[in-house]
Amino acid sequence: MMSLPPHESAPWPSFSFDVTHISSEPGVSARCGTLTLPHATIETPVFMPVGTQATVKAMTPTELADIGFRIILGNTYHLHLRPGEEIVARAGGLHRYQAWSGALLTDSGGFQVFSLAGLRRLGADGVEFQSYIDGSKHLFTPESVMQVQRDLGADIVMAFDECAPYPCTRDYAAEAMFRTHAWAERCVSAYNGAERMATGGWPQALFGNVQGGVFPDLRRESAEFLTSLDLPGYAIGGLAVGEEASARNETIAETTARLPASKPRYLMGVGTPIDIIEAVGRGVDMFDCVLPTRNARNAQVFTSRGVLNMRNAQFNEDFEPLDANCRCAVCALHTRAYVRHLFRANEMLGPRLTTYHNLSFYHRLMRDIRAAIVTGTFGEFRKTFISEYSGSGASSVSVDEATQIVEDGAGPKREAARVRHGRE
Amino acid sequence: MMSLPPHESAPWPSFSFDVTHISSEPGVSARCGTLTLPHATIETPVFMPVGTQATVKAMTPTELADIGFRIILGNTYHLHLRPGEEIVARAGGLHRYQAWSGALLTDSGGFQVFSLAGLRRLGADGVEFQSYIDGSKHLFTPESVMQVQRDLGADIVMAFDECAPYPCTRDYAAEAMFRTHAWAERCVSAYNGAERMATGGWPQALFGNVQGGVFPDLRRESAEFLTSLDLPGYAIGGLAVGEEASARNETIAETTARLPASKPRYLMGVGTPIDIIEAVGRGVDMFDCVLPTRNARNAQVFTSRGVLNMRNAQFNEDFEPLDANCRCAVCALHTRAYVRHLFRANEMLGPRLTTYHNLSFYHRLMRDIRAAIVTGTFGEFRKTFISEYSGSGASSVSVDEATQIVEDGAGPKREAARVRHGRE
Repeated sequence: MMSLPPHESAPWPSFSFDVTHISSEPGVSARCGTLTLPHATIETPVFMPVGTQATVKAMTPTELADIGFRIILGNTYHLHLRPGEEIVARAGGLHRYQAWSGALLTDSGGFQVFSLAGLRRLGADGVEFQSYIDGSKHLFTPESVMQVQRDLGADIVMAFDECAPYPCTRDYAAEAMFRTHAWAERCVSAYNGAERMATGGWPQALFGNVQGGVFPDLRRESAEFLTSLDLPGYAIGGLAVGEEASARNETIAETTARLPASKPRYLMGVGTPIDIIEAVGRGVDMFDCVLPTRNARNAQVFTSRGVLNMRNAQFNEDFEPLDANCRCAVCALHTRAYVRHLFRANEMLGPRLTTYHNLSFYHRLMRDIRAAIVTGTFGEFRKTFISEYSGSGASSVSVDEATQIVEDGAGPKREAARVRHGRE
Repeated sequence: MMSLPPHESAPWPSFSFDVTHISSEPGVSARCGTLTLPHATIETPVFMPVGTQATVKAMTPTELADIGFRIILGNTYHLHLRPGEEIVARAGGLHRYQAWSGALLTDSGGFQVFSLAGLRRLGADGVEFQSYIDGSKHLFTPESVMQVQRDLGADIVMAFDECAPYPCTRDYAAEAMFRTHAWAERCVSAYNGAERMATGGWPQALFGNVQGGVFPDLRRESAEFLTSLDLPGYAIGGLAVGEEASARNETIAETTARLPASKPRYLMGVGTPIDIIEAVGRGVDMFDCVLPTRNARNAQVFTSRGVLNMRNAQFNEDFEPLDANCRCAVCALHTRAYVRHLFRANEMLGPRLTTYHNLSFYHRLMRDIRAAIVTGTFGEFRKTFISEYSGSGASSVSVDEATQIVEDGAGPKREAARVRHGRE
């Protein structure tokens, strides 16, 4: 065990996590909690929409709040490249820059540096990489990534980590894990040196990132090491990168079992509705994924009976809502026939409506999950949901099948790199 | 003079227009009125956003209503080609198809057939043309266009007309005008035969379309002929096709002077804020134009001090709203710096926010115009507005300068044809 970092006894101000319900159903490790952050109080398990470039694609902040979201993601890598953290800081931080009054979480940039950057050089200090926008050179170190995230000013920030690709050898996964641990210690030091405060003046909570690929012993070691740093929360990184669902679920169970029960657990980049339900059953509290938003831009609609593709001619005269069981503002007003027409005609309102609906679907899924945990019926909920979702004529879609992206600022270079990931 | 059509003494049910104020200022022919339609009551002068393909690009119907719009346009030509009026009729009409509870006006398709169609053949019966989408052949006759508009079911429908290009000879303009008159009579007959009712069951009002290019005697003749048909309203077509503002304004004045004072006058496809103010001063009541929406998608923002282009680097750290004098939902929340970032990053929220703002700007402009007419200060308002709008560093933009379109379902073929028009 590591010795605890200097500030080990200081509270993480304005941050708390209370586990409010633990499932006692056999074979279910699900739990509910309340996460208190400077900008919001959040019920867990929670899904966090991804706002890569200071916007959840196609959505206004008001619409996100209307659906019920109180926390969204921003991407450190993308925001560093454009518009740059200095401009965001001068705007008063990312909340103000994008007019989002809820809570924010920024990732570490590690995933993008390792999965997206064409040219990169790994040194003792950090990673040098080229911008996908203009080819300019940038260096990410644990210290610089902490500074970028201070400038952005999210409620939750992530320690810089190395996300190993899948598949990779045990040696590679171990090396990436050890580097992640060393960087986590440097992040903690840098962060404590900055009094754990955002440039905007509010406190930030630093989460560590468990790595170790799909090797159970590495995951155990990583969870134990990071736990020794006594951070306010822990992410499970390096999954949803192409591995089988069974390997993913085993790795999740292995990891959550070694993380402290009193701290929130965040599974990065996952996933489909079924992936999320399975992970909640294994003790995960927080999720993010681009599936509901990205797939929406490809006309794919999540429904209680699986995924429907609105580009299909069968919807030409289908005057039913996207999902008859959905009560979102889109399903209250619009028909499948109309949404199909919008996609055929390349009208922006098409992806707007499907994005709003898909995010509403995910938000309601989490609400239903929480209700099932509280009432002790999570096992039954899981069974019924999966049966209805998978059983109909609609096709299900997995993270690994995430398809081409209609419109996105990043261009084809990024597409190839991330096409199989639930992250951007 | 023509003999009046068979139903000349029948009322146009659910349609009325009351002129409520007439300016007594010298040199000002502006007036205010109330237009009552089956789906809305509308204060005039009014601006109607263009919803070409059953959607005002980038906007939801709820947002349009929130801004205050009660009437929008649909395009007969585009909707005939996609999704087709049969599907719209089976949905219960265009209001239902696009979930718009306000009033609708559909144009005649004449403008598009003559300005957009690559291949077309003008016969005695009507116009044969090829779809820009798939090359399929279509025939528009006065009777078929009336049937398409019955199926779509707008509150106001337009007689089929021929819009002559600019410049063109007097002979060409006269020929197009005579054809327009003959077609108008056939439209009236077809419409009376169908009891002036939409397929959905509500009454529709048929407007005629004054043509005659920029030749004053032709405009006079056309206005007088159409007036003899005793229609509930009259459009001024064939303008905003490249002519000088002075020629346009003279033609407008010449035309409105010959139209009955008790009927609404609709200037098609116009225009910039200044164009609209000048036309209101010459007695026009209704307007539509793609400028606020199309230019929004090119990052052009209408403000009280002229047009700003959000792609300009000068806005990188400009944390002011788009227009300091604007009270729209976008200006209440978002900064120029953020909107510029969204356009740089190709984020859909960019055109969403600028479209919402520009339409809010146009809506407020019309409200201010009406208030000035009522208080007898229109002349002063016109002077002050033009001075502030044109006098600052921001560049003004005219219909003739309408620029490339960022995203649109129609493809490059259409762009070339209509790039100088305020219509789609």
